[in-house]
Amino acid sequence: MAKKKAGVAAVNQEVLGAIKTSAQDIHRKIVARKKPTMKFPVRSLANVKYRPDRGYFEIAGQKKERTLTVNTVKTFAQTLRMIALSKELVENDDIATKREAYYVSKNWEDARFNEQPESDTVMDDVEAFFSVNREQLGFIPEEKGGDVAGRLIVIDHDRDTGKTLRIDCTKFGSGAYSIPISVERLEFETSAAFILVIETAGMFQRLVKHNYWKQANCILVSMGGVPTRACRRFIRRLADFKKIPVYVFVDGDPYGITNIYRTLKVGSGNAAHLNEFFCVPQATFLGITPQDIVDYKLPTHPLKDVDVKRARDAIKNDPFIRHHKEWVKAIEQLLQMEVRAEQQALAKHGLNYVIETYLPEKLAHPERFLP
Amino acid sequence: MAKKKAGVAAVNQEVLGAIKTSAQDIHRKIVARKKPTMKFPVRSLANVKYRPDRGYFEIAGQKKERTLTVNTVKTFAQTLRMIALSKELVENDDIATKREAYYVSKNWEDARFNEQPESDTVMDDVEAFFSVNREQLGFIPEEKGGDVAGRLIVIDHDRDTGKTLRIDCTKFGSGAYSIPISVERLEFETSAAFILVIETAGMFQRLVKHNYWKQANCILVSMGGVPTRACRRFIRRLADFKKIPVYVFVDGDPYGITNIYRTLKVGSGNAAHLNEFFCVPQATFLGITPQDIVDYKLPTHPLKDVDVKRARDAIKNDPFIRHHKEWVKAIEQLLQMEVRAEQQALAKHGLNYVIETYLPEKLAHPERFLP
Repeated sequence: MAKKKAGVAAVNQEVLGAIKTSAQDIHRKIVARKKPTMKFPVRSLANVKYRPDRGYFEIAGQKKERTLTVNTVKTFAQTLRMIALSKELVENDDIATKREAYYVSKNWEDARFNEQPESDTVMDDVEAFFSVNREQLGFIPEEKGGDVAGRLIVIDHDRDTGKTLRIDCTKFGSGAYSIPISVERLEFETSAAFILVIETAGMFQRLVKHNYWKQANCILVSMGGVPTRACRRFIRRLADFKKIPVYVFVDGDPYGITNIYRTLKVGSGNAAHLNEFFCVPQATFLGITPQDIVDYKLPTHPLKDVDVKRARDAIKNDPFIRHHKEWVKAIEQLLQMEVRAEQQALAKHGLNYVIETYLPEKLAHPERFLP
Repeated sequence: MAKKKAGVAAVNQEVLGAIKTSAQDIHRKIVARKKPTMKFPVRSLANVKYRPDRGYFEIAGQKKERTLTVNTVKTFAQTLRMIALSKELVENDDIATKREAYYVSKNWEDARFNEQPESDTVMDDVEAFFSVNREQLGFIPEEKGGDVAGRLIVIDHDRDTGKTLRIDCTKFGSGAYSIPISVERLEFETSAAFILVIETAGMFQRLVKHNYWKQANCILVSMGGVPTRACRRFIRRLADFKKIPVYVFVDGDPYGITNIYRTLKVGSGNAAHLNEFFCVPQATFLGITPQDIVDYKLPTHPLKDVDVKRARDAIKNDPFIRHHKEWVKAIEQLLQMEVRAEQQALAKHGLNYVIETYLPEKLAHPERFLP
C-alpha cells in the first residue's frame, strides 16, 4: 500500500515538476524582458516515422515555435492557462474531459475559447509539449469503452479512504469490469497466460457466459469495435506489466484488420505523438484470417466497394502493412477471394464451436499468428 | 439460493411450456391433416397506442396470420426452426445473438436464411408471438452498453459451480460494473434512495471519481448515449424490484429529451411489442431543462436545423410529448431561446459545481422534475 501511494505520487511529481520547470523558464524570460518561447512537435502525418523496432508510428523531429508577440498573445495565454488547469487537476487528483476544459475556460475572461476545437488544439499542444499522454495531465477523453472478464485482479484505490480495492474479474458472472476513462494508476495481479482481445460484444458475451477464461487461463477484453484510448492503454499497461502476449480476435475483413487491429497494435497516423503510450506492440492476430475462411469453410459476405478500397489502400499506403509481407499476402488473398467473414460465422458449425474447436486449434500455434 | 434457483427455473419453465404448447398445437393439426396456423401481432407504428396509465407505447390488437401453404412453407419452417433453437438455448442456459442465429441457420438446409434481415424478421415474429422479450428466449442483442457504480449489489451466479456471486458496485474504484447483454436473471440488493441515469461517459466518470453515490445515497448508471436494450431492461428491473425512482440527467437539447429520455421512459415506436419490458415508467427528467439554461446561466450552442426539426416534430407527432403539457412548454421554450446546453456546461462554474451545487439543488425538489 505504501509502495502504491509512492507510485502514484511519483507519476504526479514528474508531471508537476515538468510543469513548474516550464513555467519558471517562461517567468524568468519575462522578468529579464526577453520574449518567452514554447516549442511544440508538429503533429501531422508528414512528421511521422514507422519504427518497426519500437513497434509504433513515431513523431519525427519537426517542431513549431510559439513566441509571445502581439499576434500570439491570446493563444500563448490560453496555453499557459491550460497548463495551470492541468497542474490543478494533478494536485487535486481530479479529471476534466476536453469538453469540460472548454467550459472551464468560459471563466478565463479574454483568454476564453470561443469554440471547443480551439481548446482541443491547445490541449493537444500541451500534451505534445510535455511528451506525456493527456491522461497524465488529468485530461480524459469523453468516450468510455472496453470490458474485462477473467483471470485478473485490478488494483485501484478508494478516493476517500485511500483504501486499496482489489477488483477480481473472475467474480462478475455474466457481467464484466468496465475500464475507466483513465487507467494510469491501475495496477494488476494475474496468472493468466495471455490476453484475448475481442472485437464484438456478442462474441465477448459468449466467451464470458461459458467461463472460457477458465479453460484457456486468460483475460478476456471486449473492444466493442475500434478500441478507445482507455481500452488500448489498459491492454498496453497490462501486457507490459505482466509480460504476457496479446492475441486479437476480430472479423476477417479489411476493417477488422486495418482499422481495429492495426490501430490497437501500432496506433494511428493523426495521433503519432501518442502512439508511444497507446500502441500494443505485443499484439498478434489470431483471426479471423483470410486462410481461416478457407480452412473452416466459413459463410461469407461479398467484399463491398469500401472494403476493396480500404484493402487496396492498406497495401499501397499503410507503412505497417507494407512492412509485413505476411500482411500484404493475407490482404491480397482476401481481395482475390472477394469475400469477408465475421467472427460469429463460426456459429455455422454450432454455437460453441468457437470455444470447443476454433480457439483451441488456433491457440495451439500462436507462432502462426499474423504479425 | 434455493429460492434463486427456483426463480430461474420458473422463468425458463414458463417459456418452455409456451414453446411446447404451440408446437403440440401445430403437430396436432398436421396429424389431423388440417392446415396449421400461427398468429403474430402486427409490428408497426400504425398498430400502436400510447397508454399513459401503463406508461408505454403498447401494441394494438391487429394480428397477421401465417398458415402453412405452398407459398409460406419456407417461412413457416424457418419459424419452427427458430422456435426450436430457442428451446435448445433455454434448456442449456445458452445464448445466441441475432447474427449467430443467422449463421446457425446455414445448417438448416432448405430452411437456411440467405440474408440476416430475413432471420431477424422471423426472430422478431417469434418474440411477438410468445409475447416475451427476445432475451427470455435466449436471443441477445449484439450491442452492449451501460455501466453501473454505487450503492448496489448485483446478484448473479457462476455457470459452472452454480455458486451465487455478489457483485458490490461500491467496490470498483474508478471503474464500474458493465451490464451484461442479458439481465433477465440478475437479482439486486440495495439501500439506495434513487437511480441517477447519466447520458455521457465523461459526466459519469466525474461522479464516480468523486464517489458521488456516497453523498447522495444512489446508484449511478451511465447510458453512453441512447441506452441499449440491456441497459434499459436493467434499469427497469432494478427500479421495479426496489420501488425506487429513476432520475435522468442528460444534455439539454432535443436529442437528449426526445431520443434518449423518451426512449428510456416509454420506449420507441418501431419496437412497440417490446416496450412493456424495456420502458422505465418510473423515470423523471432531472435536467438539463430549458429553464436550467436560464437559472444556471449556462454557456450554450445555437440549435442546429436538425435540432429544430426534431423539436417541432416531437411537439407535433410524439404521443408522449403531446400528452404532457409541461413537455410541450419546455420544448417550446427551447425553440424560442434557440439554444441548447450540454450537461458538462455546468463546468463553467467550476469542475465540481455539478456535485456541490447543481445536483443537490435539483434533488431537493424531485417534484419539480419534468414528467
